[in-house]
Amino acid sequence: MSPSRGFASDNSSGAHPAILAAIEAANQGHAPAYGGDPETARLEEASAAEFGEGSRIFPMLNGTGANVAALRAMARPHQAVICAETAHLTIDETAAPEAIAGLKLLGAPTPDGKLTPEIAATKLADPDDVPHAAWPAVVSITQATELGTVYTPQEIGALADFAHENGMLLHMDGARLANAAVSLGVGLGEASLECGVDVLCFGANKNGALFGEAVVFREPELAEGFEVLRKGSLQLASKMRFVSAQLNALLEGGLWRDLAGNANRMASALAEAVAWIDGIEIAQETQANLVYLALGLEKAETFVRRSAPHRPLLFRLGDVGLIRLVCSWDTEIEDVDRLVTELTVAAHGH
Amino acid sequence: MSPSRGFASDNSSGAHPAILAAIEAANQGHAPAYGGDPETARLEEASAAEFGEGSRIFPMLNGTGANVAALRAMARPHQAVICAETAHLTIDETAAPEAIAGLKLLGAPTPDGKLTPEIAATKLADPDDVPHAAWPAVVSITQATELGTVYTPQEIGALADFAHENGMLLHMDGARLANAAVSLGVGLGEASLECGVDVLCFGANKNGALFGEAVVFREPELAEGFEVLRKGSLQLASKMRFVSAQLNALLEGGLWRDLAGNANRMASALAEAVAWIDGIEIAQETQANLVYLALGLEKAETFVRRSAPHRPLLFRLGDVGLIRLVCSWDTEIEDVDRLVTELTVAAHGH
Amino acid sequence: MSPSRGFASDNSSGAHPAILAAIEAANQGHAPAYGGDPETARLEEASAAEFGEGSRIFPMLNGTGANVAALRAMARPHQAVICAETAHLTIDETAAPEAIAGLKLLGAPTPDGKLTPEIAATKLADPDDVPHAAWPAVVSITQATELGTVYTPQEIGALADFAHENGMLLHMDGARLANAAVSLGVGLGEASLECGVDVLCFGANKNGALFGEAVVFREPELAEGFEVLRKGSLQLASKMRFVSAQLNALLEGGLWRDLAGNANRMASALAEAVAWIDGIEIAQETQANLVYLALGLEKAETFVRRSAPHRPLLFRLGDVGLIRLVCSWDTEIEDVDRLVTELTVAAHGH
Amino acid sequence: MSPSRGFASDNSSGAHPAILAAIEAANQGHAPAYGGDPETARLEEASAAEFGEGSRIFPMLNGTGANVAALRAMARPHQAVICAETAHLTIDETAAPEAIAGLKLLGAPTPDGKLTPEIAATKLADPDDVPHAAWPAVVSITQATELGTVYTPQEIGALADFAHENGMLLHMDGARLANAAVSLGVGLGEASLECGVDVLCFGANKNGALFGEAVVFREPELAEGFEVLRKGSLQLASKMRFVSAQLNALLEGGLWRDLAGNANRMASALAEAVAWIDGIEIAQETQANLVYLALGLEKAETFVRRSAPHRPLLFRLGDVGLIRLVCSWDTEIEDVDRLVTELTVAAHGH
Repeated sequence: MSPSRGFASDNSSGAHPAILAAIEAANQGHAPAYGGDPETARLEEASAAEFGEGSRIFPMLNGTGANVAALRAMARPHQAVICAETAHLTIDETAAPEAIAGLKLLGAPTPDGKLTPEIAATKLADPDDVPHAAWPAVVSITQATELGTVYTPQEIGALADFAHENGMLLHMDGARLANAAVSLGVGLGEASLECGVDVLCFGANKNGALFGEAVVFREPELAEGFEVLRKGSLQLASKMRFVSAQLNALLEGGLWRDLAGNANRMASALAEAVAWIDGIEIAQETQANLVYLALGLEKAETFVRRSAPHRPLLFRLGDVGLIRLVCSWDTEIEDVDRLVTELTVAAHGH
Repeated sequence: MSPSRGFASDNSSGAHPAILAAIEAANQGHAPAYGGDPETARLEEASAAEFGEGSRIFPMLNGTGANVAALRAMARPHQAVICAETAHLTIDETAAPEAIAGLKLLGAPTPDGKLTPEIAATKLADPDDVPHAAWPAVVSITQATELGTVYTPQEIGALADFAHENGMLLHMDGARLANAAVSLGVGLGEASLECGVDVLCFGANKNGALFGEAVVFREPELAEGFEVLRKGSLQLASKMRFVSAQLNALLEGGLWRDLAGNANRMASALAEAVAWIDGIEIAQETQANLVYLALGLEKAETFVRRSAPHRPLLFRLGDVGLIRLVCSWDTEIEDVDRLVTELTVAAHGH
Repeated sequence: MSPSRGFASDNSSGAHPAILAAIEAANQGHAPAYGGDPETARLEEASAAEFGEGSRIFPMLNGTGANVAALRAMARPHQAVICAETAHLTIDETAAPEAIAGLKLLGAPTPDGKLTPEIAATKLADPDDVPHAAWPAVVSITQATELGTVYTPQEIGALADFAHENGMLLHMDGARLANAAVSLGVGLGEASLECGVDVLCFGANKNGALFGEAVVFREPELAEGFEVLRKGSLQLASKMRFVSAQLNALLEGGLWRDLAGNANRMASALAEAVAWIDGIEIAQETQANLVYLALGLEKAETFVRRSAPHRPLLFRLGDVGLIRLVCSWDTEIEDVDRLVTELTVAAHGH
Repeated sequence: MSPSRGFASDNSSGAHPAILAAIEAANQGHAPAYGGDPETARLEEASAAEFGEGSRIFPMLNGTGANVAALRAMARPHQAVICAETAHLTIDETAAPEAIAGLKLLGAPTPDGKLTPEIAATKLADPDDVPHAAWPAVVSITQATELGTVYTPQEIGALADFAHENGMLLHMDGARLANAAVSLGVGLGEASLECGVDVLCFGANKNGALFGEAVVFREPELAEGFEVLRKGSLQLASKMRFVSAQLNALLEGGLWRDLAGNANRMASALAEAVAWIDGIEIAQETQANLVYLALGLEKAETFVRRSAPHRPLLFRLGDVGLIRLVCSWDTEIEDVDRLVTELTVAAHGH
């Protein structure tokens, strides 16, 4: 029988009990739809405390929707967005940024999933290329990155300066912002908006929520009209109280920190244990809740096949298989131990 | 103190306890994300039983998203959709059908929110207008309509024939399909796909769900590629089991019928009681869970203001105020009685 | 044998010899592409003289392209445009404003093709409808209108005030601006931008050009980035000197006035003569170069059929046929006489 | 004084006298607008002779418009297009393919601007990536390429097979198809559609035309509805006879071959002469009318600056400057000689 918890994705884990409890608590009688409810009002306060007075938060339905709606607020169709070539935005969002926001994504190669001003600068358009090249209006970074690395506040600040000096805005896909903040030992705002990020997509779904994300604007000016744009981007929850209640549960008592903390700790434990297995290499430093392993392709394929139904992602790089393992809010050390055993078997080719 | 239940919208009501229970039951361990989970597999069976073997169901995040994604599957950008000018699609979706699906909406006036082949035919393009006019590729109807009326299976069949004979497909916005089916005394499929509807947006949210809807295709051919298009339309739930579990709870034991049945009965009771109030007219026959009342504009405005925070929609037609009152799955007869009293007071101008 | 000139459209006429001569004159050696040529520099001066210092002109490829690109500069996708329901924008542009600019067109019924502040106000969104209704960001008018009527400067000024007071911009589709200006006895700027129009699409094609139009911004701020947006809207002429040369030929010596003047005079002569034919009514006052006639549908159909290959547009209104007749820069009085004879025959039912 | 002809672009050259003569000849009286004219009928015959019976041709306004409209006919928004990373489509079209056709461009590195099945295969999506990755629906190649290289019929055939076997269509941007065909010593159809290309954008503008291009479909099925899509893509010429007349002039007597032949011969002469200049390298084999030179960056910058107003494109690769020189239909051997002298001076650093 397959184990009940795997390492395929933090989207494979369910909702934390406190999230369900918050939903039940919000499920009392009627409440105005579309955000006129008390839970959403409370969220605005919780968000201001976490992300800064003056910031504005908008509950959303999912991560791709949050990213695309945010970018529609930041750039005009026919403009461009600079991102890492490994960004979820450009790899995993089915051309929604192109088809719905009308943007060209300029993906730059990076060693570790992280942009730097130097790397981003390679994607700036030459003034001589006007009007032919798509003009970059946004730099987009992911915190923590898709490779499991984490931007320091200084690194984000440098990118914010770079973006602003070049007439661009800085967008953060914070699907795993909680994991990054825990990794850095700072608050959510300190790992994002306070470093100069203009618009943040704050993820709840991968960190114990049932569904839902949020877009947070550092300055209210940028948020102008976003209420309408959210609806026009197919992201308006009619019974919004149920998204807001989840975000409140994560933000108000610091639940986000506990859940992301567990996922990060399990990832560290996993990386540490794997380091002892002959024939498996850690392919990226483990800074958040993702662990990337490299091993022989055939062995990797066998391992992945045996992991069903919780198959992790496998990238084929010649005769090397790169496996992504994801720890969740509910991963337990027994799960890690079992996985290490399976990996050891796989590495030995049985 | 404001009452805990109002008549502003069926989106103002919460989730039925069985919905929450289904979510909790689905919240066991890990499950493959994006629809590879057992709840979604069960949904496919439940849906086939209700909507016909060969049909295909796709869980979605919200109603506007379901409509827009469905239309993207049915028509190409620059084509047109014929609908009633009162359709949610054209009145209440912030130009998302235009901006995201690239479609022109051709809204036709109707007496009761219902298209007929004759009315729809007024919006067909003249072959002489090619290539200048936008070419209608879809007829879209709402079941039950935004005015609270219900299409009979015969009426839908006639529209399906009309659409197909003119090279178009028939789309149904079934945000309140359950209310329509109960009103007709038939099953969900009998009130929709079985009459010739090609693509149905089946609403769960207004009928006791926490969030979520579904798109159902009558024939698998039309559904080809929709898995990708759903993601590209910002409507892919990562933890899909939680949408599917709600749909299962509604479909498997006929909960949809009980909930919509209550809403409809309360609307009937309301309409019946209001008929006795001097100075208030029933503006549309009450066939589902919506009641439209007409009274003097000033009185209507006073009534609406006093209903805070559960203010119903008010339409201003000269010196007449048209008020939309919506009954929900959780409306009780005491709520109706209290409302009738308030309306009586309002009609008398106090 | 069919006559060489008809009344189907001012697009059916060819190019004036002076236009061809200007093209030949511009065809000397090489010139920088995309607008860096001397003809385009000259156009900027000619345009400033006609449309006001500070205005900015951009040559475009065709009328639909000019309208759509202009609207992309004026509004964001998911917003709305208020126009007459007879506007070319909404009737004759194949949903390009919807699919490419992402805009919802709110067409209002008018008696004569002309918006007024009162008519336009019926399409404003109720603040209560936020975020559900598409928000109007632009009022669009056509000068001269598709029905052959002309806005006075006062009427345009009132619409500009209305638009600006309601946070909107005023767009003018000036496909026949020259005809309107001649009709009013004023200059091109006086019939458009100087009355408060923010962005003008200035038509050359229907007034003797080979191809090409222009977008003119009243204020340079609005034009910011339009160079890029024009390219991104598929409207950048690589050999731009050949568009600019035509516009120069029309503007510099007042050729626009002579050509539109002839078309208007012929339309007046036609309307005057037709007034004497029993059984034909003038359906709209003839203020520019379009004449609308109403006669029995069957007779109208016969007339149109016999006009091949220069068939005018026919609108079927019950048992009445509404025929649109268009005079061109090259229409001669003999053409009008011949047409009047044919209409007389048609009216008598032979 | 600057010379009247330069090497900046084939868009900098004017129109060939025969093109102007054809326009004048077409400028007789009235002709039905939008393609109902005799010139367009003639074009259909000329095109069938050149591109194959059964193919269908549509005159267009410009190259970006032709590409984007063609791709809208070949793929659905949210899908992807595989192309070389140097393709005009992805480098020089201001995100119009993204914003208007809704497509993601997957640009692959190539040594010489030419895709091969092997290179294109690196951009195929893994079935495991459904529904997250954008799904490639089209392979797009440029003939001749932006680097001045030419696909052989065999190479195109292999790409067509690859595309079709993987459920994709093959698109050709033939902005310089005439140059490629001359280079190969074959006809236009033999260098494009007959090798399995599904949809061709045939360029006229860079080869002596005033304005205008065409989209040619190999099979009429794919062309279905393109009449409407062309209008909806802002590419419908109202006085279409003037586009068709130019295309007729190019196609009917083989003028395309003479003009492209001259440009290619001049490029060969240039490349041959430059090979003798110390300090300048030919950076790509010269197969059509483009010559790429590499020299020290500083010297390259000086050369480009002195070429005003006919400055060629300069690409900065570290301390090397890559200069693109383009020969036109009207380039004369004296122009080449003068250029070689200037290059010699530049190479010697004066």
